[in-house]
Amino acid sequence: MEVVNRYVVIKHHVDGAPTEADLEVREATARWAPGSGQVMVRNRFLSIDPYQLNRMKRSSASHLAVNGIVPGESITAYAAGEVVASDCDEYKEGDLVAGMLGWEDYTLFRPSPGMLMSKIDAGGDGFPLSHHLSALGTSGMTAYAGLFEVGKPEKGEKVFVSAASGSVGSLVGQFAKLAGCYVVGCAGSQVKVNLLKEKLGFDDAFNYKEEPDLKSALKRYFPDGIDIYYENVGGEMLEAALANMNTYGRVAVSGVMSEYTGSGRRAVPNMEQVIYKRITIRGFLAWDFLAKFDEFNAVIGDWIRQGKVQVLEDVSDGLDSVPSAFAALFRGDNIGKKLVKLA
Amino acid sequence: MEVVNRYVVIKHHVDGAPTEADLEVREATARWAPGSGQVMVRNRFLSIDPYQLNRMKRSSASHLAVNGIVPGESITAYAAGEVVASDCDEYKEGDLVAGMLGWEDYTLFRPSPGMLMSKIDAGGDGFPLSHHLSALGTSGMTAYAGLFEVGKPEKGEKVFVSAASGSVGSLVGQFAKLAGCYVVGCAGSQVKVNLLKEKLGFDDAFNYKEEPDLKSALKRYFPDGIDIYYENVGGEMLEAALANMNTYGRVAVSGVMSEYTGSGRRAVPNMEQVIYKRITIRGFLAWDFLAKFDEFNAVIGDWIRQGKVQVLEDVSDGLDSVPSAFAALFRGDNIGKKLVKLA
Repeated sequence: MEVVNRYVVIKHHVDGAPTEADLEVREATARWAPGSGQVMVRNRFLSIDPYQLNRMKRSSASHLAVNGIVPGESITAYAAGEVVASDCDEYKEGDLVAGMLGWEDYTLFRPSPGMLMSKIDAGGDGFPLSHHLSALGTSGMTAYAGLFEVGKPEKGEKVFVSAASGSVGSLVGQFAKLAGCYVVGCAGSQVKVNLLKEKLGFDDAFNYKEEPDLKSALKRYFPDGIDIYYENVGGEMLEAALANMNTYGRVAVSGVMSEYTGSGRRAVPNMEQVIYKRITIRGFLAWDFLAKFDEFNAVIGDWIRQGKVQVLEDVSDGLDSVPSAFAALFRGDNIGKKLVKLA
Repeated sequence: MEVVNRYVVIKHHVDGAPTEADLEVREATARWAPGSGQVMVRNRFLSIDPYQLNRMKRSSASHLAVNGIVPGESITAYAAGEVVASDCDEYKEGDLVAGMLGWEDYTLFRPSPGMLMSKIDAGGDGFPLSHHLSALGTSGMTAYAGLFEVGKPEKGEKVFVSAASGSVGSLVGQFAKLAGCYVVGCAGSQVKVNLLKEKLGFDDAFNYKEEPDLKSALKRYFPDGIDIYYENVGGEMLEAALANMNTYGRVAVSGVMSEYTGSGRRAVPNMEQVIYKRITIRGFLAWDFLAKFDEFNAVIGDWIRQGKVQVLEDVSDGLDSVPSAFAALFRGDNIGKKLVKLA
């Protein structure tokens, strides 16, 4: 079986905020053959994630954890699609899968034990396929692991979430409410703030762009201090959160979006506060909790079915929209999980 | 019973590096009376600790954990001495005690359940009394708790200790060797470096003042990376350690000496490294582990008796030497635990 495969590449390493022009779509022939041991997936939804920027850099700590992206070569990415050809018993034509595929029309893979690939029966599992890239995919796993395994919330604790209307933040806030916490989120527009309060059930929310002094803003929103800070942005926000944290506070460092592009200044945490307030700052990746993926997903799936968790997805159309969708992430244009739907 | 009590005070809040002139010795009458419920201790050794500087500041995160020091008033401090009068059954004249007393000749206290006070039988316990302020006091507890409870070393892991010839660092390195780790320390002179390697059994040590690039220095000393960084100094050293840490590395933040005085610049940790290397940075205070104090001390005491741990103490004479001894701490003049011996 031979198909024309369109795929996204970076033209060169990207070291600042990405622009649409840094990426382009190319095409090549993809071949699947019986006896190859391979599975060919026609991708239907692609996950557009900020961490890909770190993979695109010439040099980044990211390369220690995940392969860097090579200019001109196809880009592995979380995606969901349909099996169109298979030389493996576990996968049949028509099966739906979600896992590590690529920013491309078709992906070939050879099943291996540790790989991140979930199979969904051909009839589906009652959830939109796209959810397997958002709440039931790596965003959900990141939110769940970061909040429950790293943040370890107790009922009544106060949780602050930055980039709260993003793919991960929007779930963290809802999960924290379900854990009985008081939750405040920040985001970059009034529309997002309203959404957090009105649709997602955050106790409060604010537009950080309208706060000249983040430290005082957090003092207003958390008169009794912050117990858990779910960190997505870095820079000044981290400093302000630390200044407002309670004794034994936890910072779950999921991302530092403002530091990825090199445009914002880096956080200069007050280490005296870290000591005297006995704060734990812990970086993590969702992959570290892969063994618990099914367990987490069962819980999240129940919450979605019961209407306790709203899933926000922001979908662009067509492979050609990947470059602009990716660049837009860093302007904060998305609300919820950014996805690209393929024809 | 009435005695002339000489005590040390700060003349004003201290906000930079302290000088001898910021402190002075005053005197007043101290009175103990039968029926008062009080114990009077004649102090023999005073503990001189860097954290006291934070208590002397007008504003510091320290004040959240321990009372600030008020100019003109006596200063609580860890000390060891002899009971000279007691109105409590638990304490008898001649008993030796170590605990929260003060930078003064005599301290009165009223026993209470949570207080930090160890009683040593009148005959002593085989250890020099001064050890109850160093390896068997808060320095030992800080080193033990920070290494074992926060750092959680596994055999064969690589441990980096800054301010390694100081009261805490000198113990951390020895404890880590006993835990089967590879240990490198840094200090501020060749004499200290030799001491670490020759007397304390560190695998290696270096003089940070002779290293123009701390990041490359650590790369040389840890070609296979750092698993645990026991942090005493802050600033550039923290950045260099993070850059050289392995995946799942732990930073036990015991102190940030270089940041206390405001003279060095603050650390700007690379949070991308914290995320992708899944690093945990945790501030702690020895007090958090008070419930395990006796357990820790039993282990440390055995190690000392067996000759497996060397106790370094740097003793000045007389209450009048407290101001200069304290200021000298911040120039790195001491080797091991800084103590003042009273007549």
